Amino acid sequence: MTATKIAILGVGKIARDQHIPAIAGNETMELAATVSRSGGIDGVDNYADIDALIAGRSDIAALSLCMPPQPRYDIAVKSLMAGKHTMLEKPPGATVSEVLKLEKLAKAKDVTLFATWHSRYGAGVAAARGWLFDRQITSVQIDWKEDVRRWHPGQDWIWQAGGLGVFDPGINALSIMTEILPNPVHLTASTLSFPENRATPIAADLTFAGPAGMTVKADFDWRQEGPQTWNITAETTEGTLKLTDGGATLAINGVAQTLPEAGEYPGLYHRFAELIEAGLSDVDISPLLHVADAFMLGDRKTVAPFHE
Amino acid sequence: MTATKIAILGVGKIARDQHIPAIAGNETMELAATVSRSGGIDGVDNYADIDALIAGRSDIAALSLCMPPQPRYDIAVKSLMAGKHTMLEKPPGATVSEVLKLEKLAKAKDVTLFATWHSRYGAGVAAARGWLFDRQITSVQIDWKEDVRRWHPGQDWIWQAGGLGVFDPGINALSIMTEILPNPVHLTASTLSFPENRATPIAADLTFAGPAGMTVKADFDWRQEGPQTWNITAETTEGTLKLTDGGATLAINGVAQTLPEAGEYPGLYHRFAELIEAGLSDVDISPLLHVADAFMLGDRKTVAPFHE
Repeated sequence: MTATKIAILGVGKIARDQHIPAIAGNETMELAATVSRSGGIDGVDNYADIDALIAGRSDIAALSLCMPPQPRYDIAVKSLMAGKHTMLEKPPGATVSEVLKLEKLAKAKDVTLFATWHSRYGAGVAAARGWLFDRQITSVQIDWKEDVRRWHPGQDWIWQAGGLGVFDPGINALSIMTEILPNPVHLTASTLSFPENRATPIAADLTFAGPAGMTVKADFDWRQEGPQTWNITAETTEGTLKLTDGGATLAINGVAQTLPEAGEYPGLYHRFAELIEAGLSDVDISPLLHVADAFMLGDRKTVAPFHE
Repeated sequence: MTATKIAILGVGKIARDQHIPAIAGNETMELAATVSRSGGIDGVDNYADIDALIAGRSDIAALSLCMPPQPRYDIAVKSLMAGKHTMLEKPPGATVSEVLKLEKLAKAKDVTLFATWHSRYGAGVAAARGWLFDRQITSVQIDWKEDVRRWHPGQDWIWQAGGLGVFDPGINALSIMTEILPNPVHLTASTLSFPENRATPIAADLTFAGPAGMTVKADFDWRQEGPQTWNITAETTEGTLKLTDGGATLAINGVAQTLPEAGEYPGLYHRFAELIEAGLSDVDISPLLHVADAFMLGDRKTVAPFHE
């Protein structure tokens, strides 16, 4: 079997740290080109823009779009119109409506569109989903608290309209929540804290309602300077499930679970290859929809200005 | 044929002005009860809450929910769980996710759910849709400017989180936009003006992108004291379509069109009866999704406080 040639568009931190190593470790994929204005990586052809890539490289079947959400839609349209299988970093768009348009376009062009949620491929997520599937959940607490200065240095786009602010990491928690809960939930209350000099929130408190009085509380905060926390705790009538380290570790009733060795981005590229092989798309808007709902329903508080 | 017995829940201004006369004028429907804490209408049984209605009136097959969106979800769940065909005033929910949950529940219970958009039944809307269907649209301008003091006196819920502010009328324009445009659009820019003492915006400027460079600009403003404006103008390569008076009148290239005599709410109840008869639901989330997108992508401006 010949490896699928793939190009990465947007060679920033996430591409270098995660996408490029994941492709290198996947024998069904070959990184054949990059698109970047600030330069690519050694030994791989780099193009100035997607138009040059599409014009010059009909051998490349798949494109992985790693740029921020605000400029991504127009590039995704070009990718799909050129008949390329297309993978989107999270969040899949700056609006929900544009993602639904891309899904329609992919169907019309008969190519694969994969709107990725990397946190769903954390080592403990599948086991958490399995354990919760048949149990009665009474409440869920999500704590996603990190220091924005440490994890997002120089990323201006997260503070601009469409950049989602604290929901940029928080949507990872929501992508796990929507993956592991057996029934859908909907937002009932939302408080968003906007620094007075920024267009996106630095913190968010959310409440969701599920079946039979079940509630989910989520506390997202970018001002956490001590220990960093990415935890989801679910209380059930048969005990407590605790997913920690952003989904990498899992304990049930205090007992650490043995988990498969699994990397998030290797999992994404394995799934992308499967989808291409099967001629399918995978576009789940539910995490982004909860974020849009949180903005629409949100009470806004103005908090101290943020300076990096 | 026996008329379908229907109850109205939430006997406020919209129920008295529109729903009750529309049901009275529909020979396939009979208003059999109301639910209201502040009293019903002469000659019709009134119940204190939906539980009492459901317990006492198995003869009533359909419920029309006219209360504001924030409390509506829990009542809609009770209605659907009791096997009642259910009609929702606009907007169909305080979040998009809850509407999707109601849609699933209606399917599971095999009853009709109708998420209504009354402005789509304006006299000029169907003709506008027909004329635009096969034409190349280059731009659309939406002006929805009204005096909130005149049209929404005492409606505190519109200023509370989930009440949508100026999007409460603006979503009527978006429901027409999504009905008459032959292709979907997505939001690319949004500026929301929040009075410093209110949780929802008093004005919004929106830009949407459609196919082939087509753009839609929407200007929603609740501070309009002079002439009131609810207009949609579409420029095409074959001239200009102008829908005015909220969809009631239509001109094409300056020529007023002869339109059928049609009332919005009579149209809604006619459609509800059709859906029940056919065993179908009609739930289009696209107008509410554009509003959620506008909040998520929006740049927020603080403007002068609003006092009624």
